[in-house]
Amino acid sequence: MQEIEPLRITPGVGVDILDQTLLPGEERRVLIADVPALCEAIRSLRVRGAPLLGIAGAAGMAIGAQTRGASDAALAAAAAELVATRPTAVDLGTMVARAVAAARAEGPDEGRRACALWDFAAAFAAERVEEDRTIGLAGAALLPDGGAVLTHCNTGALATGGIGTALGAIRTAWEQGRLTRCYATETRPLLQGARLTMWELQRLGIPATLLPDTAAASLIASGRVQAVMTGADRIAANGDTANKIGTYGLAAVAARHGVPFFVAAPWTTIDTGCPDGTGIPIEFRAADEVGGFGTSRWGPQGADAYNPAFDVTPAELIAAIATERGILRRPYGESIRAMSGQRL
Amino acid sequence: MQEIEPLRITPGVGVDILDQTLLPGEERRVLIADVPALCEAIRSLRVRGAPLLGIAGAAGMAIGAQTRGASDAALAAAAAELVATRPTAVDLGTMVARAVAAARAEGPDEGRRACALWDFAAAFAAERVEEDRTIGLAGAALLPDGGAVLTHCNTGALATGGIGTALGAIRTAWEQGRLTRCYATETRPLLQGARLTMWELQRLGIPATLLPDTAAASLIASGRVQAVMTGADRIAANGDTANKIGTYGLAAVAARHGVPFFVAAPWTTIDTGCPDGTGIPIEFRAADEVGGFGTSRWGPQGADAYNPAFDVTPAELIAAIATERGILRRPYGESIRAMSGQRL
Repeated sequence: MQEIEPLRITPGVGVDILDQTLLPGEERRVLIADVPALCEAIRSLRVRGAPLLGIAGAAGMAIGAQTRGASDAALAAAAAELVATRPTAVDLGTMVARAVAAARAEGPDEGRRACALWDFAAAFAAERVEEDRTIGLAGAALLPDGGAVLTHCNTGALATGGIGTALGAIRTAWEQGRLTRCYATETRPLLQGARLTMWELQRLGIPATLLPDTAAASLIASGRVQAVMTGADRIAANGDTANKIGTYGLAAVAARHGVPFFVAAPWTTIDTGCPDGTGIPIEFRAADEVGGFGTSRWGPQGADAYNPAFDVTPAELIAAIATERGILRRPYGESIRAMSGQRL
Repeated sequence: MQEIEPLRITPGVGVDILDQTLLPGEERRVLIADVPALCEAIRSLRVRGAPLLGIAGAAGMAIGAQTRGASDAALAAAAAELVATRPTAVDLGTMVARAVAAARAEGPDEGRRACALWDFAAAFAAERVEEDRTIGLAGAALLPDGGAVLTHCNTGALATGGIGTALGAIRTAWEQGRLTRCYATETRPLLQGARLTMWELQRLGIPATLLPDTAAASLIASGRVQAVMTGADRIAANGDTANKIGTYGLAAVAARHGVPFFVAAPWTTIDTGCPDGTGIPIEFRAADEVGGFGTSRWGPQGADAYNPAFDVTPAELIAAIATERGILRRPYGESIRAMSGQRL
């Protein structure tokens, strides 16, 4: 099995990325060696996925130092350009800020700063791989032995740079011989399930079945899946979980049928400053994502659309949350507090 | 407001249809004056919708008699050709068979048979208009005054030839000044909501909002809709209802939020020979409908797919069923039996 590498760092040179907009039709790698090219790749979703954007942001700062110098002013300019590409991507902003701090900690020498930035980006990428591996083991332990699982959106290597979160757990269970099949929703409107998750599953040799989002309730009711597992974009202090639009509906139907609904996510996804799901801000996206895809248009032009990027699944519907620190259980407030200082 | 006429019968000549495959981009009418052309139009979904296919089938028998004669052999050949286009479409088969019987009841004269067939088709089309009007009034009475409603798939004029079933009720409530907005799902995989329902709503001047199927649970949880209403493909004796894939998920989420889920359908949809939903056969459709649409392809080629055309919503989730005989309520078994002989 060939590893999926959505972004490779070559210190002193740049990054080469797998252009995710061309998947699954074409696997094209693109070498990126300056900040504007990286910004374009992020904006146009050639590189996407919250954790992977963190790596891209850190690498982008190294590329900036390499090509434009690493003075305070140059660092600030590169940081501003990178963060502006996806203003709501928390990991991108966080890692760019941490990269700036790491560079400045080296003192004023620009050469030393550039080296430190390459080291920082590579170390963070390596950390992500390790963290995913740990989340994957925790998540795989949740999945029923000998069963099939339903997942939503893309939470695999393409999204994180490691093995992924929910899809990493699914892959781990498969490698342990404990999984029979993974069902993937198309995930309208941006179709990450159809385009990316199915591609990853096929690459990994995991038996995979694609379904329209409309067919998920029927699938769960049919008894074909023994668990549902997704990633998370933000987890409130009480366990309420914001994730890709459509997640809540899956969890609600799974609960009706006694099928456990699990979340797999890094600890950084937990926002203890947010008491519950009502406090999680939800991004609404452009109307033209609905009623069409790419150059295809099937809805009327200019129609009003309801297009939130995320929904909130209440904690009561979540059977467990796998993190790199271990498995959180209800009541999540206590479980999160108990694990806050702890490392596996 | 201009009426939507998906199929007009011109006795002695043929039918002209609105080509639904070109909507919403283009409104093109096509004159059909022989059986092969009508079969092609049905197969390629230029004419679709269970009740409208009943009208098309009856009209097709008249066209056959007009162009090929109306001997017993000619009638049987035309009937076989028409029914083979959509073998699972119950109304098509039923109306073709009734048309054959009506023709034969005229005796052997082929001219008289042809006239009888035109009369039969026109009378059935007129009945459909009246039936829809009655269903629409019953269904509109269920919708909360001053509220918004969510619907799924296409159940409007394009599907029935009248004002529609669920969409007819929504239109009636709008005309009564009791509805504020209609939300329509895209309805993957065939996108009837995005392509057809949104077009009808815009034509009718009803404030309309399109959403990805994934956003329906979020919409219901947000309090934006006060009811969900869909059509039905088959209703079992206990009220369990098979309808377009995705309906069950909407009903399950609506129940969690105390939002009433209603069905609007003609009495002929009730199958008292089927005790409950487990007895309703579910059509599975081709895998290539998933992961793409039209000439667009976004999923991997040749991927396995789970693609049922319908799901079953259990009776316990259905607040009421509007029919042309009146409103059915739980327990549906009793309600159906009580109304079986009755006419409004």
